[in-house]
Amino acid sequence: MEKVNIGVDVGGMSIKAGLVNNNGDILFKKSCVTDGKNVPKFLEDMKNLLKEVIEEGKKLNLEIGGIGFGVPGMVNNKLGTIDKMANISGRNIPLRDYLSDLNLPIYISNDANVAALAEQKFGAAKGYKDVILLTLGTGVGGGVICDGKLYEGNEGKGAELGHVVLVLNGRQCGCGRKGCLETYASASALLRETKEMMEEHKDSMMWEYANNDINNVSGLTSFECAKKGDKWANQVIDNYVMYLGEGLLDFCNIFRPEVFVIGGGISNQGKYLTDKLQKYLEDHNYGYESAPRSEVVVAKLKNDAGIIGAASLFIE
Amino acid sequence: MEKVNIGVDVGGMSIKAGLVNNNGDILFKKSCVTDGKNVPKFLEDMKNLLKEVIEEGKKLNLEIGGIGFGVPGMVNNKLGTIDKMANISGRNIPLRDYLSDLNLPIYISNDANVAALAEQKFGAAKGYKDVILLTLGTGVGGGVICDGKLYEGNEGKGAELGHVVLVLNGRQCGCGRKGCLETYASASALLRETKEMMEEHKDSMMWEYANNDINNVSGLTSFECAKKGDKWANQVIDNYVMYLGEGLLDFCNIFRPEVFVIGGGISNQGKYLTDKLQKYLEDHNYGYESAPRSEVVVAKLKNDAGIIGAASLFIE
Repeated sequence: MEKVNIGVDVGGMSIKAGLVNNNGDILFKKSCVTDGKNVPKFLEDMKNLLKEVIEEGKKLNLEIGGIGFGVPGMVNNKLGTIDKMANISGRNIPLRDYLSDLNLPIYISNDANVAALAEQKFGAAKGYKDVILLTLGTGVGGGVICDGKLYEGNEGKGAELGHVVLVLNGRQCGCGRKGCLETYASASALLRETKEMMEEHKDSMMWEYANNDINNVSGLTSFECAKKGDKWANQVIDNYVMYLGEGLLDFCNIFRPEVFVIGGGISNQGKYLTDKLQKYLEDHNYGYESAPRSEVVVAKLKNDAGIIGAASLFIE
Repeated sequence: MEKVNIGVDVGGMSIKAGLVNNNGDILFKKSCVTDGKNVPKFLEDMKNLLKEVIEEGKKLNLEIGGIGFGVPGMVNNKLGTIDKMANISGRNIPLRDYLSDLNLPIYISNDANVAALAEQKFGAAKGYKDVILLTLGTGVGGGVICDGKLYEGNEGKGAELGHVVLVLNGRQCGCGRKGCLETYASASALLRETKEMMEEHKDSMMWEYANNDINNVSGLTSFECAKKGDKWANQVIDNYVMYLGEGLLDFCNIFRPEVFVIGGGISNQGKYLTDKLQKYLEDHNYGYESAPRSEVVVAKLKNDAGIIGAASLFIE
């Protein structure tokens, strides 16, 4: 009987679950739409989906070890609750208790944490023991692997790497603090900085790229126009690399990771982005004189990282 | 035969070594003056001191497990070298190799790291598993205990908590970066801010406290005058608590420690300082909504922390 675990990629509008073996292969995958604004329905949909996945596991003659969850928000891994999450109404939702009749071990973690685990076990950071993952999206998520183990902090509320201050009393962050890395290095921040640069420089090639409509600006605009040589687009990218690079240097000084894994939409820029970041780290001695090199790579597992990583919470 | 380890508190001008049992008691202690500007002499003095300590261990019928070092600078714990340190001329000094004829296991770590270990095993953080220590002196040293274990980062060059950026492009830091926590939250920074405030406000009580001579200003000046109600001294302290508090919030978001241990001269302010820091963390929700409480306490072991902590590198 092959051993597998269930990995669940939680969202407020859809839930994805899969059976994952110890090689990180997804043997079966199923998803459902749900409504996080209606918590009883959200929980019911979750349980029904999991029952189907468990049933499929039986059919496939698989031995299920446990159910892991990656939640895009704040969890309490001791209590097994979802404390706060986008597109969901409730607070401190007792997910583990609600699913206790499934009679399987349950572990609830944060989405960036499980993505880090997936990349370290089966993806871009395979073979490394000290790994920092940053997902650059609406916010900046962080995952930390120390000496081969996921580091979550007390209650699973640590590794919030997007919420270290980069600019004292800087821009207001959604977390309540001001000047967090997230407000300068997220994809949303890149978009904001792109638009600001365009408003200041009507001669920028970025206007043409966006068909002269600021509403057409995306995370691609500055990157693509920078590659074509637009001065202002390059300035946006250079600033962005500086912001993100300073954050990476902070994490160099704290963790000295062997490798940084960059995930989220912006990571589609691949080597164009990682080469610039690598150079920034090198030019600044990895934060400290003669500090060991930290490699910068892009995430590999993309959309499946959530399911694989959540299941990996049960892989030794 | 009682089991002990040797702990060595390394300095460029003096070296202290002691025999420490598994309860953290120093059974014998000896020190010597040395000259870090003359590396061969420094190494010879080190070896002679250790031979004496080993000899004393034999007399006392003690079984020595290993020799641990706490170095105020940059080490390489893989190679057993002192890479860079104040008051010492050389770089990458192969301390472990040089001492190989003592025939004892040798481990070389950073001074703040071993202080954290000492406080967690035998001091202010005894009983806690997740601990962050910050020493506030000329610089800001950091030590991290995760799940009961010392976390040093690759090559032992991590946990440089004083070198996370607080103010992007802020004041020049000795490490090469700009705006590091160290440049705002060290004792040196407090002194600088005190003097600046005094120069701006000649009516401050701090002038009287310093006998109207700016050269008499110390780390005590602002604290003592703030307690007496001086407005400008209180402003210095409030700013200092804000700088340090923002740093602690960064570490809350990354580590969620159960306890912060504050060491260095400024920690003599005791509850006057920790109460203010605790309030700052509470007012800012420990960096994140409904995040778990992190206690702030002052270090307990003071001058012996170096010896005890260095020896603790060999205590399971």
